[in-house]
Amino acid sequence: LTSRLPAVGTTVFTRMSTLAAQANAVNLGQGFPDFACERSLLQAVNDAMQADFNQYPMMSGAPVLRNAIAAKVAALYGHQYDVNAEITVTAGATQALTTAILCCVHPGDEVIVIEPSYDSYVPAITLAGGVPVLVQMEAGADGYTVPWSKVAAAVNGKTRLIVINTPHNPTGSVLRVADMEALADIVRGTDVLILSDEVYEHMVYDGARHESVCRYQELAARAFVVSSFGKTYHVTGWKVGYVAAPAALMAEFRKVHQYNVFTVNTPMQHGIASYMADPKPYLELPAFYQRKRDLFREGLKGSRFELLPADGTYFQCVRYDKISTQTEAQFAEWLTTEIKVAAIPVSAFYQQGKESGIVRFCFAKQDETLALALERLGKV
Amino acid sequence: LTSRLPAVGTTVFTRMSTLAAQANAVNLGQGFPDFACERSLLQAVNDAMQADFNQYPMMSGAPVLRNAIAAKVAALYGHQYDVNAEITVTAGATQALTTAILCCVHPGDEVIVIEPSYDSYVPAITLAGGVPVLVQMEAGADGYTVPWSKVAAAVNGKTRLIVINTPHNPTGSVLRVADMEALADIVRGTDVLILSDEVYEHMVYDGARHESVCRYQELAARAFVVSSFGKTYHVTGWKVGYVAAPAALMAEFRKVHQYNVFTVNTPMQHGIASYMADPKPYLELPAFYQRKRDLFREGLKGSRFELLPADGTYFQCVRYDKISTQTEAQFAEWLTTEIKVAAIPVSAFYQQGKESGIVRFCFAKQDETLALALERLGKV
Ligand SMILES: CSCCC(=O)C(=O)O
Ligand SMILES: CSCCC(=O)C(=O)O
Repeated sequence: LTSRLPAVGTTVFTRMSTLAAQANAVNLGQGFPDFACERSLLQAVNDAMQADFNQYPMMSGAPVLRNAIAAKVAALYGHQYDVNAEITVTAGATQALTTAILCCVHPGDEVIVIEPSYDSYVPAITLAGGVPVLVQMEAGADGYTVPWSKVAAAVNGKTRLIVINTPHNPTGSVLRVADMEALADIVRGTDVLILSDEVYEHMVYDGARHESVCRYQELAARAFVVSSFGKTYHVTGWKVGYVAAPAALMAEFRKVHQYNVFTVNTPMQHGIASYMADPKPYLELPAFYQRKRDLFREGLKGSRFELLPADGTYFQCVRYDKISTQTEAQFAEWLTTEIKVAAIPVSAFYQQGKESGIVRFCFAKQDETLALALERLGKV
Repeated sequence: LTSRLPAVGTTVFTRMSTLAAQANAVNLGQGFPDFACERSLLQAVNDAMQADFNQYPMMSGAPVLRNAIAAKVAALYGHQYDVNAEITVTAGATQALTTAILCCVHPGDEVIVIEPSYDSYVPAITLAGGVPVLVQMEAGADGYTVPWSKVAAAVNGKTRLIVINTPHNPTGSVLRVADMEALADIVRGTDVLILSDEVYEHMVYDGARHESVCRYQELAARAFVVSSFGKTYHVTGWKVGYVAAPAALMAEFRKVHQYNVFTVNTPMQHGIASYMADPKPYLELPAFYQRKRDLFREGLKGSRFELLPADGTYFQCVRYDKISTQTEAQFAEWLTTEIKVAAIPVSAFYQQGKESGIVRFCFAKQDETLALALERLGKV
């Protein structure tokens, strides 16, 4: 059996979570909260099950959930998607991303991916027969930025898609208005589509706003915009997300979607839809996570780790070159097994495993968990 | 935007369910029960949510569920899969089928599909760049049978996979020991893999046993075996299924799976696992559905519909050539809008839309629903 994805191994998240469990380490590696979600969300799902919402929903998603998504996107970002033709509920954001890539990338098409990047983009492009074209972010004193001139230089007649991600995993950087304008300049007058991974949309700090592609009509007109409920509602294991796109793109998305998963868990869709009636949980999320971010940064200030900016997501990247010359993978492993705090090497987000002397911590943890991790990291 | 799946439209199930709703017809089209599942199953899922099983499970599936699946398969079919390396939980059977195809079919590879067939196989093959090779079942007085000599003749050096489905949707036929032996003869000494869709495994009637590929070591050694909980537990909207395969095949499956959906809903997995401790629900399923099948067949005996054998699944196919010369799609539409009973044209399960004068009814309905449908169909 010849592999379709010879380069693929087990994800770094699975590997580091396994190691963390074995080492009995505080797991600040894989991104997920260690605290419970709100009970009313569970109640809403249970209510849906009890009300017998247990058979196939519509292929595009339960209308109540698509309505709630469209209303929320309109209220937050001012873009009105057509509820019937432009929104599809997915089995998590990863499924949305992979399905979007599979539906529009033909063999030989080029797809621009900005590194470091979430690890599913490139395998999905490979599976579609596409060619990933990698452009690396630049890590300066102000943190990671996208070199748009290099993105512009990478665009050619074969470019089918540019994948962007804001707030950005793993770097915690966020795109600003100037970034969105630079992107619009690049794609204007071309056939290039955009795939925008916005799963951390509600984790932007210091009063900044999330620059969703949905805010920019010119970009939204050629974009698949992906988000998820798992991260926003502290239920990463529920695997319910969505994609929004103009009708013509969505028609192609649904052709693949209906034969990939066909539909998505019905009671979860109904439960989430009714929970969404209250905007408080996502409106309060920036303050909730900013407090944790600040607590974590404060706690590392006396340490030998050097903090990079953390403007969004629930991740904090740190430089460790004052501590060790090990590779990131070695250092993350050492932190996990010896210091008993698991981290993720940022090199895992580069196809060629670029070494920058940086690891990523997840601060979506109880204050007590963060305190224990900080105590251990302070001794390094 | 050039389509990757130009031949794909909206599934016949979505179209007929929409028409049934508009026409206020009894929906015997799309396959799903119109009765509730057991309350203890809902309770088990709610318990899992309340116990905070809401974050990412393992990529391969929650260990408790993989254990339960392996134990059940071993008890029923005598094949012991390795819980860690040979079972993966999927977001429903469709995702399992498509992922299996994507992980092993390379561009140009041939895949043998036996028609009529469930409508997701061919688009998944097309998406993988494979070439579907269609072999048609033969519809005689004894119902539909697979012409294995034609399957054998279709195998050549480019054949990568044979897709089988037993009990069979839409025909309600089941493979027997002689079929499995014929299949084994065909693949012996070749590199051809098998993808076995067994989602109706617990709906085999008249005391016959389900001929799972798992019963045949020689076949199981080269097979992806797919099943699902939605049909067995009357929760088609939950979208939890699984694939079992030898470790070498599973390694390739998981490479695609982890970047397609990554993981599957955690509380559903835990709830199903605990509900599976009691084998009664699936052991009693054949009797439960056989009674409904018999009731439905009995009710049609005086009518002008001609019953085909229904040895498995919750589908009953009928010939209507004594009633009409319309195409199957026209006749199903007429039944839906005029007689107010929705059916599915079997032609929708053929790539070239072959006409056989046969439509499919789903009898997974409350007795009252079936009685109302029978009353209406009796007047045709
Ligand atoms: C889907 S894997 C775990 C979560 C995640 O996205 C991350 O840690 O970066
Ligand atoms: C996944 S579509 C609906 C169910 C089904 O498989 C069928 O009706 O044949």
